[in-house]
Amino acid sequence: MGKKVATVLTNMFEDVEFTEPAKAFEEAGHEVVTIESEAGKSVEGKQKEATVKIDKGINEVNPDEFDALFIPGGFSPDQLRADDRFVAFAKAFMDAQKPVFAICHGPQLLITAKKLEGRNATGYKSIKVDMEYAGAIYKDQEVVVCNNQLVTSRTPEDIPAFIKESLELLK
Amino acid sequence: MGKKVATVLTNMFEDVEFTEPAKAFEEAGHEVVTIESEAGKSVEGKQKEATVKIDKGINEVNPDEFDALFIPGGFSPDQLRADDRFVAFAKAFMDAQKPVFAICHGPQLLITAKKLEGRNATGYKSIKVDMEYAGAIYKDQEVVVCNNQLVTSRTPEDIPAFIKESLELLK
Repeated sequence: MGKKVATVLTNMFEDVEFTEPAKAFEEAGHEVVTIESEAGKSVEGKQKEATVKIDKGINEVNPDEFDALFIPGGFSPDQLRADDRFVAFAKAFMDAQKPVFAICHGPQLLITAKKLEGRNATGYKSIKVDMEYAGAIYKDQEVVVCNNQLVTSRTPEDIPAFIKESLELLK
Repeated sequence: MGKKVATVLTNMFEDVEFTEPAKAFEEAGHEVVTIESEAGKSVEGKQKEATVKIDKGINEVNPDEFDALFIPGGFSPDQLRADDRFVAFAKAFMDAQKPVFAICHGPQLLITAKKLEGRNATGYKSIKVDMEYAGAIYKDQEVVVCNNQLVTSRTPEDIPAFIKESLELLK
């Protein structure tokens, strides 16, 4: 049966880090629900190649309704984590040990949620030291899967491996 | 005598966090030298209100030539810290205990340089947890001056206080 994947993003997300995994998840029969501050608004990628309609406002959603969390990268995660509601939302998936897929700058939201301590993970080079200070065991690999729950990748080039491992956890 | 202020910035810097302090420094008789990967190129602020000509490429400069370091915020510092040369450049000013002025996301470069351990500092809300994990004592104040050397502020609203304390250290 298809799973429901909460996807948090705002303006300046890294275009393909949303579009390609979202397409793959949907093609595999899963539902991708985009979440930002307000339903109905549109957000734009930093390459201006993708515009995404927001399905749900953060105040309308409950982590219990979803099977997994997807955090695309770019400059989106840093903006989201300035809003405590997105931090609490991400923390809930980590606490419930539901699958979480974070690529590039995506792990920034998990640092602010203080949920990377002791976890094997990767991310974009610029946040490597942040992740290590946050207690993560940083691996310079295209994809890292930790405890069969947390999938992380570094850059758009890692997207195929990121999709493959994420889909595995949605099975 | 006027001081020489190395200023590291790239595209998507927070416009006024560069323009206002730079203007104040110059009006006080100091020299602001802009540094990015290559001399002669132009970089643009994220609000598209300011375009800045780069004076020096990072490979052409030596920290010894400068009296102080200025790191404007926005999405610029996160991009700069993906390049080890900017991290080493920032580290040199901290190691030499020369004045360092960082606003908003500016402290990200100091986290990657591992120079915030035990320091009183502030920064934009989204990087508060990063700074704390990095060992900083985070203060939610318009400006924090640590050891008469490190000046940090949170947002564009804090610019007047940031300028005042920075100018004090350039005297």
